[in-house]
Amino acid sequence: MSDPLRELPRWLETANAIVDETRRLILDAVARGFAHRLKADDSFVTDVDVAVERHLRARIAENFPGHGVIGEEFDATDAGAELRWTIDPIDGTHSFRFGVPFYGTLLALLHGETPVLGVIDMPGLSLRVSGARGLGACANGAPLRLADADGPVEREIVATGDRAQFEKAGKLAHYERLTREHPVVRTYSDCLGHVLALQGRVGAMVDFGLHLWDVAATQAIAPEAGARFVCLERRALAGSDAHHDVVFGKPAVVERLLRLLA
Amino acid sequence: MSDPLRELPRWLETANAIVDETRRLILDAVARGFAHRLKADDSFVTDVDVAVERHLRARIAENFPGHGVIGEEFDATDAGAELRWTIDPIDGTHSFRFGVPFYGTLLALLHGETPVLGVIDMPGLSLRVSGARGLGACANGAPLRLADADGPVEREIVATGDRAQFEKAGKLAHYERLTREHPVVRTYSDCLGHVLALQGRVGAMVDFGLHLWDVAATQAIAPEAGARFVCLERRALAGSDAHHDVVFGKPAVVERLLRLLA
Repeated sequence: MSDPLRELPRWLETANAIVDETRRLILDAVARGFAHRLKADDSFVTDVDVAVERHLRARIAENFPGHGVIGEEFDATDAGAELRWTIDPIDGTHSFRFGVPFYGTLLALLHGETPVLGVIDMPGLSLRVSGARGLGACANGAPLRLADADGPVEREIVATGDRAQFEKAGKLAHYERLTREHPVVRTYSDCLGHVLALQGRVGAMVDFGLHLWDVAATQAIAPEAGARFVCLERRALAGSDAHHDVVFGKPAVVERLLRLLA
Repeated sequence: MSDPLRELPRWLETANAIVDETRRLILDAVARGFAHRLKADDSFVTDVDVAVERHLRARIAENFPGHGVIGEEFDATDAGAELRWTIDPIDGTHSFRFGVPFYGTLLALLHGETPVLGVIDMPGLSLRVSGARGLGACANGAPLRLADADGPVEREIVATGDRAQFEKAGKLAHYERLTREHPVVRTYSDCLGHVLALQGRVGAMVDFGLHLWDVAATQAIAPEAGARFVCLERRALAGSDAHHDVVFGKPAVVERLLRLLA
């Protein structure tokens, strides 16, 4: 049987090309203005989230017939496929709605349950991180390979979500311990913290209560970028969804955080 | 007696031109790499902080003879002058040292004790906000005039410093109240939060324990940008320095935060 991932290099190239298109779509919408509303779960959704996910699904169907899709705004397709794409059209919609440029598009490919390709695009910062198994990672086209902490790990910046995110995940004690025990914690939530950790700019990120589409791209890119990625807990939810509590970044900083949160 | 501020338009133009120079200096240093060390107060300083402040002081001396200077890295000059410039060469040195692009140069002009001109430059984000009394405010050259909150104020993002900053200011109770009571609080500390609040992207910022050079530029720009600026407390320190606890941003959001922190 031939390797089901033999076309991964071409798929990564295609995924990046598709996300070039959604970046233009998003920046056009920012320039033009867009509508927003609150969803049943009290989070924002905008016309742009929906348009970007539609665009990604159409391009995936064209380019990857037979692959499944799991996205934030619509039902999953081909849920039983060996290869499935996960989509978060706009991660950080709250920032996006208010014009804070810390939002992004997340696209990942799962082989079975394992993320093997990831693209994180932040149009508002002109920043893209991508990678795939065995192919390394890139930031804006340049190879990305982070060095471990080269100084005291307690000085490194740790990114995390806000208090409400930990509260919703039932993990307020972890938030309290993190913000009390580590001297430099910043709520660089969503893809902002993910990208900064993959670049080694923040030492690590602690992110709780994530959907698969929030975490799959980072999980695929992390080992290729030299980052350690640890899933502390995966809580099953209704349907095929689950919540993931994760820590990732420079190995020495992740090690410190695992001890601190244990 | 002639108006001592009659030349404010020219001074604002000159200040922006000088900060164009420090932006280049900073971006060159980022590309080249730079040395860093810990100061006595356990905060980082880099070769770049020192070089930028020297450059600003030299240009101020050339362009504004007779004006005083108050800066973070060197002693004040002409402390008794009617017009004094305040300098924070790199606000957010901790971010700068680690490559997180959320640092900036702050330059302001005081008339007596009152800030009347401010420039905030963020080289890592290619973002500049500036303004002066009666001359309006600009973001990257475009007029900046923020609208008040156009939706529920409790949905607006509030920027703040991290827990350690409140602890150092002896105001931990304020931090606890803020992060518990407001649903969306992000530690967009230093000039990042200042710029986002002046742009109306975050609803407001709560920033405690600031030096004069951390706050003067924002205080000068805020009324010109349509933002409300409130100093909750000013604590005298040794010499002419003081710590400022401030809240600024969209009037309706500032109002909510004043109630919440009262």
